Amino acid sequence: MSRSVKLAVIAGDGIGPEVVAEALKVLDAVTAPEPVDFELTHFSLGATRFLETGDVLTDEDLAAISAHDAILLGAVGGVPGDPRLKNANIERGLLLKLRFSLDHYVNLRPSVLFPGVPSPLGAPGEVDFVVVREGTEGPYVGNGGTIRQGTPQEVANEVSVNTAFGVERVVRYAFEAAENRPRKRLTLVHKTNVLVFSGGLWQRIVTEVAAEYPDVTVDYLHVDAATIFLVTNPSRFDVIVTDNLFGDILTDLAAAISGGIGLAASGNINPEGRFPSMFEPVHGSAPDIAGRQLADPTAAILSVALLLNHLGLADASARVSAAVTADIIARSVAAEPRSTGAVGDAIVTRLTDTPA
Amino acid sequence: MSRSVKLAVIAGDGIGPEVVAEALKVLDAVTAPEPVDFELTHFSLGATRFLETGDVLTDEDLAAISAHDAILLGAVGGVPGDPRLKNANIERGLLLKLRFSLDHYVNLRPSVLFPGVPSPLGAPGEVDFVVVREGTEGPYVGNGGTIRQGTPQEVANEVSVNTAFGVERVVRYAFEAAENRPRKRLTLVHKTNVLVFSGGLWQRIVTEVAAEYPDVTVDYLHVDAATIFLVTNPSRFDVIVTDNLFGDILTDLAAAISGGIGLAASGNINPEGRFPSMFEPVHGSAPDIAGRQLADPTAAILSVALLLNHLGLADASARVSAAVTADIIARSVAAEPRSTGAVGDAIVTRLTDTPA
Ligand SMILES: CC(C)[C@H](C(=O)O)[C@@H](O)C(=O)O
Ligand SMILES: CC(C)[C@H](C(=O)O)[C@@H](O)C(=O)O
Repeated sequence: MSRSVKLAVIAGDGIGPEVVAEALKVLDAVTAPEPVDFELTHFSLGATRFLETGDVLTDEDLAAISAHDAILLGAVGGVPGDPRLKNANIERGLLLKLRFSLDHYVNLRPSVLFPGVPSPLGAPGEVDFVVVREGTEGPYVGNGGTIRQGTPQEVANEVSVNTAFGVERVVRYAFEAAENRPRKRLTLVHKTNVLVFSGGLWQRIVTEVAAEYPDVTVDYLHVDAATIFLVTNPSRFDVIVTDNLFGDILTDLAAAISGGIGLAASGNINPEGRFPSMFEPVHGSAPDIAGRQLADPTAAILSVALLLNHLGLADASARVSAAVTADIIARSVAAEPRSTGAVGDAIVTRLTDTPA
Repeated sequence: MSRSVKLAVIAGDGIGPEVVAEALKVLDAVTAPEPVDFELTHFSLGATRFLETGDVLTDEDLAAISAHDAILLGAVGGVPGDPRLKNANIERGLLLKLRFSLDHYVNLRPSVLFPGVPSPLGAPGEVDFVVVREGTEGPYVGNGGTIRQGTPQEVANEVSVNTAFGVERVVRYAFEAAENRPRKRLTLVHKTNVLVFSGGLWQRIVTEVAAEYPDVTVDYLHVDAATIFLVTNPSRFDVIVTDNLFGDILTDLAAAISGGIGLAASGNINPEGRFPSMFEPVHGSAPDIAGRQLADPTAAILSVALLLNHLGLADASARVSAAVTADIIARSVAAEPRSTGAVGDAIVTRLTDTPA
């Protein structure tokens, strides 16, 4: 008997639909031999939808999405500077609203520099780490405000909210991840010397949880120093655990040194499964290259690998990763750039040529 | 008649005294032919002083320092993890207290990749930009707090405070800087899609001030994207203006790609001169290598160049920069590493051999 998985698909804007099309091809191919059926529901959300209907994410949308087992998202966001989107803030109203409403407290972002992939670093060494970024607290909560807006007396505040509950659950997830990796190393990144309140909380929780994981080696870096090590010695990292904003910054830098955001996948995870987890490439909607088959769908396809793993389909996940790795290695010897579809097709061919 | 400059010297901890000794040698040599006398007052401040007296920075210290024309600081901070410093927080209590009390609203951090200097980037291209980091607001204000500390119900908040007054003055400074550079380009870095309150304020002020500088080309980057460009295309930057925390992160990354924090100088500037400005290397006190003549004093010496420029001694400043550049170029062909003192001596020799 086949297991059925209800997958909500949010292709989104710009290059989103193009990369999602390839990701779904791959999902189809890799699960064909598996006893699992994916039932897809496509949700039209993002800037395009907003321009048509004025809605970013309605309660009905949210309820409908919540009734799924998982979400695959392409990219959302309109053309920068489009005056019609001035008051929309698709990022906060859609992407962050999903992450917060669906309690995606783990934002998982692996960084691997595949053999042959060019890096801006002259001697990158081995790059294989994962950032466990907190997804539901910190400066992302939106608890700020402005007084005297638009005047010379304006005061604009942002409040970063951090709770022991919120920090502990993501820190535990990170320790579990570290324990299951060969190097068993965990680095807390924060700015404890300046952000003494939130920093103190993160430091305390990491110290407390560390006592339960004697095999995991723990260290600490200030966020500024972490950016230095990411470019001078990325091999020193195994698992990084950090807050929402620092994680945002570090993972873009991490993507840049390990082949670019065209290769960076991510999972917004609710580990207990009370809400559907959401898998998405780290890149944005890149409206400037949209509709021209120029986007690299690899990050979306690697997001499918993370999705499969989350669903307990570890074998299928590993086969996607292996096919992508082989494709990336082949790419580095090929001369011609390929279309979005050609990359997806090449990966599908590898999957179907290799027996499960 | 000679002009007299009262210089407060805070050598500090770790490698601080060693690099400051070289910086003062250079100051002495370069100003010898100038009609200016530097009167130095040495302040014993930092972890060492705290361990001796229990004081970080007293009101008397602050008043005495304020009575000077400028400050040269080496580095402060004790051995990480020293239990006796647990409750000291030298960074907040000394470094940030000086920046805030002396209204150092411009934190100026140039990044230049000198010819021959190794960069972790494979193809860095030309790197020559300056970060104008706000120094008295943002998440650095310390307006946070914790409730139920140490319990599973702890909530720790950090408040980032941003005022039109504070943003406008640093943005104006950045536009002036951009106007006076050949490329006349200014990039605002923030995270306006998430930090909508503070981001909106920064964006509004930059747009308003831009109208007065029609020759300056302005663009905007989210902080996460900025880290990508810093490693993939640093040449795109000319003047970056950003808030206190983003500036902290970006300038460490900027230092890393342009030769390391051994070369990164900074000025904490009160442009109106109501308070003395403070010049310091970006690096910390590096207690692990202290006292062994292993530290590179170049960042401290380049901080002297910034100090001279601030005092209106542009020629002397240029001569220090030229001597340092020549030394750095010579270094890249030399085989032997040199002691802290040898680097200072080599730069002094270049200065005294070259007629003013
Ligand atoms: C689009 C934006 C809100 C988002 C974030 O800041 O989290 C993005 O940068 C990311 O990293 O997924
Ligand atoms: C030591 C620390 C408080 C300081 C800062 O965060 O500003 C340092 O990192 C710097 O950049 O000067």
